[in-house]
Amino acid sequence: MTELVARNPDYRQITEQVFLAAPFVQSLGIELLDLGPGWCQTRMVITERHCQHHGYVHAGAQATLADHTAGAAAGTLVAIDETILSVEFKINLLRLADCEELFCEGKVIKPGKRFSVVESSVWADALGGERLVSKAQLTMAVVASVN
Amino acid sequence: MTELVARNPDYRQITEQVFLAAPFVQSLGIELLDLGPGWCQTRMVITERHCQHHGYVHAGAQATLADHTAGAAAGTLVAIDETILSVEFKINLLRLADCEELFCEGKVIKPGKRFSVVESSVWADALGGERLVSKAQLTMAVVASVN
Amino acid sequence: MTELVARNPDYRQITEQVFLAAPFVQSLGIELLDLGPGWCQTRMVITERHCQHHGYVHAGAQATLADHTAGAAAGTLVAIDETILSVEFKINLLRLADCEELFCEGKVIKPGKRFSVVESSVWADALGGERLVSKAQLTMAVVASVN
Amino acid sequence: MTELVARNPDYRQITEQVFLAAPFVQSLGIELLDLGPGWCQTRMVITERHCQHHGYVHAGAQATLADHTAGAAAGTLVAIDETILSVEFKINLLRLADCEELFCEGKVIKPGKRFSVVESSVWADALGGERLVSKAQLTMAVVASVN
Repeated sequence: MTELVARNPDYRQITEQVFLAAPFVQSLGIELLDLGPGWCQTRMVITERHCQHHGYVHAGAQATLADHTAGAAAGTLVAIDETILSVEFKINLLRLADCEELFCEGKVIKPGKRFSVVESSVWADALGGERLVSKAQLTMAVVASVN
Repeated sequence: MTELVARNPDYRQITEQVFLAAPFVQSLGIELLDLGPGWCQTRMVITERHCQHHGYVHAGAQATLADHTAGAAAGTLVAIDETILSVEFKINLLRLADCEELFCEGKVIKPGKRFSVVESSVWADALGGERLVSKAQLTMAVVASVN
Repeated sequence: MTELVARNPDYRQITEQVFLAAPFVQSLGIELLDLGPGWCQTRMVITERHCQHHGYVHAGAQATLADHTAGAAAGTLVAIDETILSVEFKINLLRLADCEELFCEGKVIKPGKRFSVVESSVWADALGGERLVSKAQLTMAVVASVN
Repeated sequence: MTELVARNPDYRQITEQVFLAAPFVQSLGIELLDLGPGWCQTRMVITERHCQHHGYVHAGAQATLADHTAGAAAGTLVAIDETILSVEFKINLLRLADCEELFCEGKVIKPGKRFSVVESSVWADALGGERLVSKAQLTMAVVASVN
């Protein structure tokens, strides 16, 4: 794919701020690991509160990680007066997630002026590791910032 | 559609137990309102912790509500030695969710021995109201209980 | 839901024209049955060429019916200088489709200036009948017409 | 990912047969290019009949290519007495497809005893090329063969 380019030189600080300013993301302990134009990597340390009744990470917690990371990946490409909203996503839960950490990478597969399409991969234990526990395909709208 | 029938007479108690035993569901304050064979209704009182950085309910919190309610709807139809696991879902975020409560209804549109397909509707403020904020279509696996 | 209103008084003729002008839709024999603001109903008479190797209607033929009908439903709501393009869709194949006719209804569940979200139901044998064979949830972009 | 292994030594001939025996696939001119355990590559030469009313390849034709190729990829991994049925899929249309050929690659991202999850990429003009026109994520059921 052709190299993606950030239009806002301050995209790193803005993305860091989005993670800190989102209470749901903070309450789940989702951390920003690294990012660049069109991609973002995150981590979520698993505790009991992330789990469903069998003790596995709840599909909704995995979906939150996948969605937020994808939004951040799409956000690296927008202009200074634009922001990202989730339009829709689809996620497959591939394996039962019984692990201490989940890692996620979101990658923009098609940037656009109106919306960007992103893929998020969620792994147990290691970024890019053997245990891919969920995979999502997401559509993110690029909208004018309100403030 | 032909009337759906519960195979396990204790499906109400089991579903109530699933809500109480799932820490992620408890931490989001998702409450079981009502249920019957093939359907389930829930509520989530919104607080700041459910929100993303613009103050709207995070897509991941909506997805959690949609997924868990769908799983409960599918669970009303399984045999005594079976349980439900999420295979995959797709959710459209239709409106910005700035509200005090979200309500959800999950309805099985195709029950099956191996998996059931469910639709979940999420409304702001009132069950079945004017403000449908998200809609999901979900595939749930019917699997043997481990215990 | 609040009543949907057509912005282009000629939406019927335009939709009829779209069906006739789309070679893939014609080659599958998809017929426009009826439509109104925010909805469209279609039919596809099944022949051997619609089928996969077991003799059931191919998932791709069902997806084509669901997608085209959804696009037509969304198209009833656009302005005179706008048209519809498919952004994405998700479809569940619910039952094996061995039948003589498939019927489809597309309904807009959230109209929008930039995109509309639509649900398409596909039934064997009768519109709104007992045998729902597939269900789709689709995101349609509203874009400026090129001509 | 760990290497995927074919359980049926005749998977190539069986897959070739599935392409030839599926009238809808034949009518669209979908050709099997190559395959191996967990993957399949296909081609569809575009003619007017594949197109919608603006002259681009119809979303339904792209979905058919993505779905059939994914089914073939999943089929390389099943036992001699098993076959594949599509459970559901989601596809994003990324670019307008005005081209002479579409190429598709389906890759199993999670094989399973009951279902496999597959990704299909559809490119204009060249396999793995610059113009990714659609991307799909698909759930395929592994079922007992009827004959």
